[in-house]
Amino acid sequence: MIEAVRWSADGRGVRIIDQRALPGEYIERDLRTLDEVCDAIATLAVRGAPAIGVAGAMGLVASLDASTGLDASAFSGRLTANAARIRATRPTAVNLPWAIDRMLARAAGVRGTPLEILAALRDEATRILEEDRAMCRRIGEHGVGLLAPGARVLTHCNAGALATAGMGTALAPVYVAAERGAQVSVFADETRPLLQGSRLTAWELARAGIPVTVLTDGMAASLMHRGSIDLCIVGADRIAANGDFANKIGTYALAIVARHHGVPFYVAAPTSTIDTAVADGDAIVIEQRNADEVRRSFGHLIAPEEAAIYNPAFDVTPGELVTAFITDRGVVLPPYDFAAWGTHEA
Amino acid sequence: MIEAVRWSADGRGVRIIDQRALPGEYIERDLRTLDEVCDAIATLAVRGAPAIGVAGAMGLVASLDASTGLDASAFSGRLTANAARIRATRPTAVNLPWAIDRMLARAAGVRGTPLEILAALRDEATRILEEDRAMCRRIGEHGVGLLAPGARVLTHCNAGALATAGMGTALAPVYVAAERGAQVSVFADETRPLLQGSRLTAWELARAGIPVTVLTDGMAASLMHRGSIDLCIVGADRIAANGDFANKIGTYALAIVARHHGVPFYVAAPTSTIDTAVADGDAIVIEQRNADEVRRSFGHLIAPEEAAIYNPAFDVTPGELVTAFITDRGVVLPPYDFAAWGTHEA
Repeated sequence: MIEAVRWSADGRGVRIIDQRALPGEYIERDLRTLDEVCDAIATLAVRGAPAIGVAGAMGLVASLDASTGLDASAFSGRLTANAARIRATRPTAVNLPWAIDRMLARAAGVRGTPLEILAALRDEATRILEEDRAMCRRIGEHGVGLLAPGARVLTHCNAGALATAGMGTALAPVYVAAERGAQVSVFADETRPLLQGSRLTAWELARAGIPVTVLTDGMAASLMHRGSIDLCIVGADRIAANGDFANKIGTYALAIVARHHGVPFYVAAPTSTIDTAVADGDAIVIEQRNADEVRRSFGHLIAPEEAAIYNPAFDVTPGELVTAFITDRGVVLPPYDFAAWGTHEA
Repeated sequence: MIEAVRWSADGRGVRIIDQRALPGEYIERDLRTLDEVCDAIATLAVRGAPAIGVAGAMGLVASLDASTGLDASAFSGRLTANAARIRATRPTAVNLPWAIDRMLARAAGVRGTPLEILAALRDEATRILEEDRAMCRRIGEHGVGLLAPGARVLTHCNAGALATAGMGTALAPVYVAAERGAQVSVFADETRPLLQGSRLTAWELARAGIPVTVLTDGMAASLMHRGSIDLCIVGADRIAANGDFANKIGTYALAIVARHHGVPFYVAAPTSTIDTAVADGDAIVIEQRNADEVRRSFGHLIAPEEAAIYNPAFDVTPGELVTAFITDRGVVLPPYDFAAWGTHEA
């Protein structure tokens, strides 16, 4: 299995696969400074809600590596400032603030030198990394029972190994099924504007030897009408207490189309994606991204300068369109009431 | 108003706007040979169901311009062969075979020299051109009543002036409303893989001074949820007797999403698009296009070579999702039974 986020060889930086270059080029990159960490998250070199949580926590450690010579007060100020900046790089996924908050809480519990605090933070980030890997596998094991032999799974965006530190969320049941010899196949929405489906999902599945077919985002309904899709599995960037969830733009339309055809629609996500502080989808902040992601694709002008551009990164799908949530704690059926779960216990 | 298809300056070729170059470059091109006509239609230099009917008829004339020195039998053979080749360039839209059949019927009615037959064909092609312009305007006048002042119209692909010889089909009500001073605006799905929405619809509306916003195909549901869309209008490439219709891939998903939100969904098309020989949508042949339209966009590899590609040019939307058809004969409400209409009378 590929590793989208891990420690660099010397253990002091964050080694990522640069997802901007795929599928044409495979580039690994070490993030060592605050700027490098924030830039990698903001430009989607590392992306996917679980992966940016892990990369944010590990990146916080990397960004403080050169600051252990500071006095305790200055180090504490640096820690707070770096955490705030990493936290603000992307607004929608809950995993990033969740991971940063957990790091700050760990630091607050240490009475010691900057070096000792950094060691504790490194330990905490490693725990977050390892928990993410374990969570992915548990999601896969809970979800695999939903895939009959020969199942044809449609997914949107990339909620695979590239989006986590482990085997992914939406793709975890597929990887576990494949490990067990089931002949599953995947249909991947290309996922405009940034094409995470065609560039990333198709790449990692092909690399794993799992049959994958790419389609444009408007084609899923046609496949469902033909009876070519058995189920949908998507990831989530933030899940509200009532089961409404934010995910890559286009997810909501897919959920409506799946319901129209009676195709089961599953959301796979670790517990850390649930934000019980958010009652429902209306309260989820949606990141608006730059118009040029749509207007200029691949260096070409594809829409005239005079046209306005609508480019939200995410949409919100109501929980009533979700057949079940596949989490690390098990498969959760409706009605959804995550408020009682207690947030972010793994 | 732009003219997507007209006679060249000397009246012997077909002058088109080369739609492959938009929105970056505005190029007009004269088609004078059979190869040029077929290539322009097959590569979508001229596209849109009504426009390829008009261009096919006019192109047949252009392709015979150098053959009037042949004897009657050889000319007749050339006519039959050229008509068959133009007819076969694209399979889904009914307008192309309809226009070619009409040309052949006109030729069959002429007892005369090749020069006289060609003159009759030129006259027939000019009639088809002028009827198309008139039909567009009638569609606009019938449809404009559906647009309240300030209406926000969502459309898919390009069924505008660039898709016809006139002011378009889906966009005709928008142009007529704008002529009358109504402050309408348009949301244009970019329409992957060939981006006719962002490249063509946005370009022609911006050129006409009508506010237009481009979105990717997965974003329409998000806009509808926000209450930002008052109605959808799309074109059609072939309409079956029961109201099922083929249109650009992605139309079917849009119709489902519109129904889910209670947004009216209209189909604007000239009567020549109705194919009463086709009982329902299952009988409509769907053109499958090359995988590289999806895999290689703008010269970039956006999906790995190992991935399969699904790339139908069209999908079929059932008539029950259509609020009304806007035709040159008026607005047609359900239940749809076009069998009684008699095909292709304008």
